[in-house]
Amino acid sequence: MSGHLTVIGTGPGNPDQMTPQARAAIEAASDFFGYKPYLDRLQVRPDQTLHASDNREELDRARAALELAVSGRHVAVVSGGDAGVFAMAAAMCEAIEHGPAEWRDLDFSVVPGVTAMLAVAARVGAPLGHDFCTMSLSDNLKPWDLIESRLLAAASAGFVIALYNPISKARPLQLGRAFEILRTVLPENVPVVFGRAAGRPDERIRIVPLSEADPGMADMATCILIGSPETRLIERPGREPLVYAPRSVKAAT
Amino acid sequence: MSGHLTVIGTGPGNPDQMTPQARAAIEAASDFFGYKPYLDRLQVRPDQTLHASDNREELDRARAALELAVSGRHVAVVSGGDAGVFAMAAAMCEAIEHGPAEWRDLDFSVVPGVTAMLAVAARVGAPLGHDFCTMSLSDNLKPWDLIESRLLAAASAGFVIALYNPISKARPLQLGRAFEILRTVLPENVPVVFGRAAGRPDERIRIVPLSEADPGMADMATCILIGSPETRLIERPGREPLVYAPRSVKAAT
Repeated sequence: MSGHLTVIGTGPGNPDQMTPQARAAIEAASDFFGYKPYLDRLQVRPDQTLHASDNREELDRARAALELAVSGRHVAVVSGGDAGVFAMAAAMCEAIEHGPAEWRDLDFSVVPGVTAMLAVAARVGAPLGHDFCTMSLSDNLKPWDLIESRLLAAASAGFVIALYNPISKARPLQLGRAFEILRTVLPENVPVVFGRAAGRPDERIRIVPLSEADPGMADMATCILIGSPETRLIERPGREPLVYAPRSVKAAT
Repeated sequence: MSGHLTVIGTGPGNPDQMTPQARAAIEAASDFFGYKPYLDRLQVRPDQTLHASDNREELDRARAALELAVSGRHVAVVSGGDAGVFAMAAAMCEAIEHGPAEWRDLDFSVVPGVTAMLAVAARVGAPLGHDFCTMSLSDNLKPWDLIESRLLAAASAGFVIALYNPISKARPLQLGRAFEILRTVLPENVPVVFGRAAGRPDERIRIVPLSEADPGMADMATCILIGSPETRLIERPGREPLVYAPRSVKAAT
């Protein structure tokens, strides 16, 4: 009998933003692998087993999950947000590509979810309403020079930019450098949205012009949306402003 | 009494991929505005009213919804996928910015959803597992030159590209031109995923190398994912291949 492996995107953290498909996949699983804070959100039954791990051991976790799955178990690998956006689905595929042939014969599936940038965007209007790029700012697995060149390429071409993994204790300096680079090509009043834990009780959303964007406004759980020169901010008396990317762009900028 | 306006992302079309938050927002609404195929998916009660419209009348629809909301109704504007990704949230914000002051005082909210590219990506592995760009290929509201320059900038910088609105009866030629442009900067074996109606009964997923990508493989309901030079394809005997973007990029390409 062959086992099953499902990579599940559980959404931004608010149970109301987890799809019924993800919930059903959780109910069907016998074993769960994932970063501990994501596993802590699950309400598992006594017959279901949690295998918590550190956030930085993605490939080890992927291999352990695959080994258990080929033994015939119904294994779920749990990610926050969407399973495929800077989350576990890519690590699973990487492990499968370089692992034993039997891993390719598993019943492998991915359950999508609402990724952080969509939850943050929804809280402030429609900042991703037009062309945008999604990037991880972590240089743990790619060279910093490449990150700089992608930031410049994206901003110069008029894309809104969504930044994941903007900062951590081990990487305190990259975000400030990213803002410096973006200030060389973007107007200083471009709106920047810092969205932390969108939709959760500890949510914190802040909108500032690029000239005032500061790394101290972000932590590991923050997704940052950086506007394009087209991005608009609508003031609303007595309410938070709205930020949006217009659907149309005029010719000859 | 002030009314409410909620823009709701109903997900890719499979009811199992609609969040409980979206479902609750639908139940709470008195009136629905949207493109008819999205409204057709709703199961409304006799006391709820549908206001269907054509897909190309976004701003008119936005204004009509806002006018009804300020009259005190609880209005829902319904989008497929996520409400903020090439959907109605941006048109709503645009209408609010240029409309009467009372529209800014509405209780306005956006409910995020699983957008098409995430549903398509989940079906084939993790093609959006690393930095990517999301673009609309429609030149109805932006000049074609800008689209070309963004395609080139994104592909040259190593981003995977997700294309929305790739083709329509009124725009039959742009997609072929886009593939031509991408072939000038990307290797011919880069995987291209054509994902139509992901998660729905009429789903059609197709993976081809860029050299064989053809506009005839797409229609209006297709989301296209174009790999980067780093994108991997894993053959699996007796199963569909997996496509993924590795999490790591080596220095000095």
